[in-house]
Amino acid sequence: MPETKVKKEEDFNEWYNEVVELADLCDKRYPIKGMNVWRPHGWEIMQNIDGIIRGEMRRTNHLEVYFPLLIPESLFQKEAEHIEGFGGEVYWVTHAGENKLEERWLLRPTSETAMYPVFSLWIRSHSDLPLKVFQIVNTFRYETKQTRAFIRVREIHFFEAHTCHRDFEDAERQIAEDKEIATRFFNKLCLPFIFNKRPEWDKFAGAFYTISMDVLMPSGRTLQLGSIHQYRDNFAKPYDIKYEDENGEHKYCHQTTYGMSERVIGAIVGVHGDNKGIVLPPVIAPVQVVIVPIIFKGKEKMVLDACKQVHSALESASVSSYLDEREDTPGRKYYEWELKGVPVRVEVGPRDVEKGTVVLARRDTGEKREVKLEDVVSEVQNLFEDISRNLIETAKRLLESSFFRVKNVDEARGKKGIVEIPWCGREECAVEMENVLDMRTLGEPLDAEECDENCPVCGEKAKTWVRLAKTY
Amino acid sequence: MPETKVKKEEDFNEWYNEVVELADLCDKRYPIKGMNVWRPHGWEIMQNIDGIIRGEMRRTNHLEVYFPLLIPESLFQKEAEHIEGFGGEVYWVTHAGENKLEERWLLRPTSETAMYPVFSLWIRSHSDLPLKVFQIVNTFRYETKQTRAFIRVREIHFFEAHTCHRDFEDAERQIAEDKEIATRFFNKLCLPFIFNKRPEWDKFAGAFYTISMDVLMPSGRTLQLGSIHQYRDNFAKPYDIKYEDENGEHKYCHQTTYGMSERVIGAIVGVHGDNKGIVLPPVIAPVQVVIVPIIFKGKEKMVLDACKQVHSALESASVSSYLDEREDTPGRKYYEWELKGVPVRVEVGPRDVEKGTVVLARRDTGEKREVKLEDVVSEVQNLFEDISRNLIETAKRLLESSFFRVKNVDEARGKKGIVEIPWCGREECAVEMENVLDMRTLGEPLDAEECDENCPVCGEKAKTWVRLAKTY
Repeated sequence: MPETKVKKEEDFNEWYNEVVELADLCDKRYPIKGMNVWRPHGWEIMQNIDGIIRGEMRRTNHLEVYFPLLIPESLFQKEAEHIEGFGGEVYWVTHAGENKLEERWLLRPTSETAMYPVFSLWIRSHSDLPLKVFQIVNTFRYETKQTRAFIRVREIHFFEAHTCHRDFEDAERQIAEDKEIATRFFNKLCLPFIFNKRPEWDKFAGAFYTISMDVLMPSGRTLQLGSIHQYRDNFAKPYDIKYEDENGEHKYCHQTTYGMSERVIGAIVGVHGDNKGIVLPPVIAPVQVVIVPIIFKGKEKMVLDACKQVHSALESASVSSYLDEREDTPGRKYYEWELKGVPVRVEVGPRDVEKGTVVLARRDTGEKREVKLEDVVSEVQNLFEDISRNLIETAKRLLESSFFRVKNVDEARGKKGIVEIPWCGREECAVEMENVLDMRTLGEPLDAEECDENCPVCGEKAKTWVRLAKTY
Repeated sequence: MPETKVKKEEDFNEWYNEVVELADLCDKRYPIKGMNVWRPHGWEIMQNIDGIIRGEMRRTNHLEVYFPLLIPESLFQKEAEHIEGFGGEVYWVTHAGENKLEERWLLRPTSETAMYPVFSLWIRSHSDLPLKVFQIVNTFRYETKQTRAFIRVREIHFFEAHTCHRDFEDAERQIAEDKEIATRFFNKLCLPFIFNKRPEWDKFAGAFYTISMDVLMPSGRTLQLGSIHQYRDNFAKPYDIKYEDENGEHKYCHQTTYGMSERVIGAIVGVHGDNKGIVLPPVIAPVQVVIVPIIFKGKEKMVLDACKQVHSALESASVSSYLDEREDTPGRKYYEWELKGVPVRVEVGPRDVEKGTVVLARRDTGEKREVKLEDVVSEVQNLFEDISRNLIETAKRLLESSFFRVKNVDEARGKKGIVEIPWCGREECAVEMENVLDMRTLGEPLDAEECDENCPVCGEKAKTWVRLAKTY
């Protein structure tokens, strides 16, 4: 079988660039850097991913909304830290037709400042709480670093949930629910990840604290796929989001958000893919099974009839399948569907038909098996489970073998992956570690055990462990 | 039952404004005029409408893509008529962070100029044709007229299909397919409409010809919901979209587009709604059936058990239903669900349960019927058909009774609806009719019969009939 020009194990970043194009996920030739065209295959995968998070939102009583893209500058500037954090990274609309706007509008980098003035109108009393909404939209960020498909782009396909609560404790319960949602979501995508409580100096602009969800890419760099923020009443005060409680008292809401971007698809490409292309978890594959007839002269009808039987059996069982009847060699078809990550291939040749069997080929391991034609649906469904299990276990092994708990900076040197180092909690010590290791601080583990060691930078008693890694 | 403050038959436009808010479709208090917040109910209806067009696209082998929102000015300016038509109506991004952009970017008003440079890379040979793609995206238009929810807004939820063909004839076949798609689509939404071939001076900027789909609102004004454009090779030339044919010759593609906007939801509100709220065709209702328990002391469990039985029977039959167990009076629940347009209400009281029956109430006619509990699924499904039939027939009667074929301008005067007048084909004569009648030209019927009359303005032999109406 043909393979990618660049090998994943040799040059991960170049392999990634090659494979996102070969698998027809996106086209990077659009004339604005970092604004790519989603091709049909990539967009359908993204929509399937969106479908999973929509299911999670429904399960947890979040309602879907859509807020405007454009935000007046005056609204944006109400929360001081927020504007400081984002001000340099937004795009500005200044003109409409021939007219200069009275006030500049920015393209949302995220929607706090569009939503919260409206939340203050929606929320009147404690009976309006909790308010739980989400949207899936295009957002914009003026990236000056090198762009990379799905991973660092300037128009970003973005999921954002926003909630309002009566007090800090109820907002904390939301954070607990968000963590459960994240765990279920990434598990379905076969992506093991870690939560990190982001350090104070690198939390979301305006947040009380930020938790990130990070995956490890095979390059040894981590990729932040999403984050959960506890805002306390930091935004409620400037945006005046208040409710009347049971005693007639007016109180500020406490708020949270949960955001994830198209980076999820980048992680799926990077973590699961190989030198034959991308490998899709069955749950998000637009085509879950491709059926390829192996035609010999005089046997066409017999083979195609069997293929159609397989196709309709799979469709009846709600398995998305495609019968590839195009005039081309089976080999070239295999190659193309492997590139696109289709989890299972069914091969049907005249000899199989005579025996009443078909051959199933797994995309993840390449393994082939002969099964009875009448068992094809249950065999395929079992295979989906096996594939999902294999994908997540392979990724878990990578994560575990790239995770190093060390006692000092020297031990951390040269490690490919995530290092966990005793830490006093001070920014300057973490920055020193960052500089020495050429890594970035991911943050603390959420449920940090006692750390009996000393901070290797200042020598004082460590307060906790801190994680560092090279990042995207 | 409570009713809207403003009556539909007395002041349609004010009733419309009231009902879109009461039915929780959108919130117009966002601080940029014409950029509204989609509330959960409105957004879910819109997504169901999008689902219907996606189904039509799948049926006709269109693939879904997503192109960037921002378009460099130089790309936009390649097609001279297009820039002339849209140049004054677009929003301009001029700055990123603190930096002035080297070239201005505009927010897409529609995506021809974003897509076509990329199509020229995608299309190499005749085997790449036809290319049929679509996207559902936010678009922007700098509206200076008075805005109105869904009908005239500045951020527009927009569907656009774009196709490329080997020649004019194949593009014409696409137009025929588009007309079939439109007919099926609007039929599902119970919206009778008319096709109009738009006059030369009012076709889409850059098109060879434009066909509009117009519905009649109860105010007597027509609302254009979408359009189909034949571009010929007008865009292929400036954007260099060429293919190599079987003989090695390089030829320009011929292109078409099909666009529809969120105005569809405006038409559903306007055409089907009444003084109790909106009325949704069952096919797009987020909640198709609401089940309301009528609780009496001591009978709670009996009633709720029966409600749950109805609920689970409906869900098993893929009918979206909601069991309203909130602590409130049945009357207030009826009011709320009627406002939101839920097609069928099931009322379950203790006497019904004793008799083994439930009561079905139709949203469209208000009619109530007692049915056996065990028949509830099939009765509800029959009711859905009856409701859809009634909605479309009522709307057809409105359209037909508001359609006037007249021989001269005097006869057309004061008519509420659409008038069809003999016409020589010259712009100045149509403009004269527009001025006298205070109407706008919709265009010619697609399959215009011979017209044996004379143009009432210039007196010359009429070439065809022309339709005029007051429009939104």
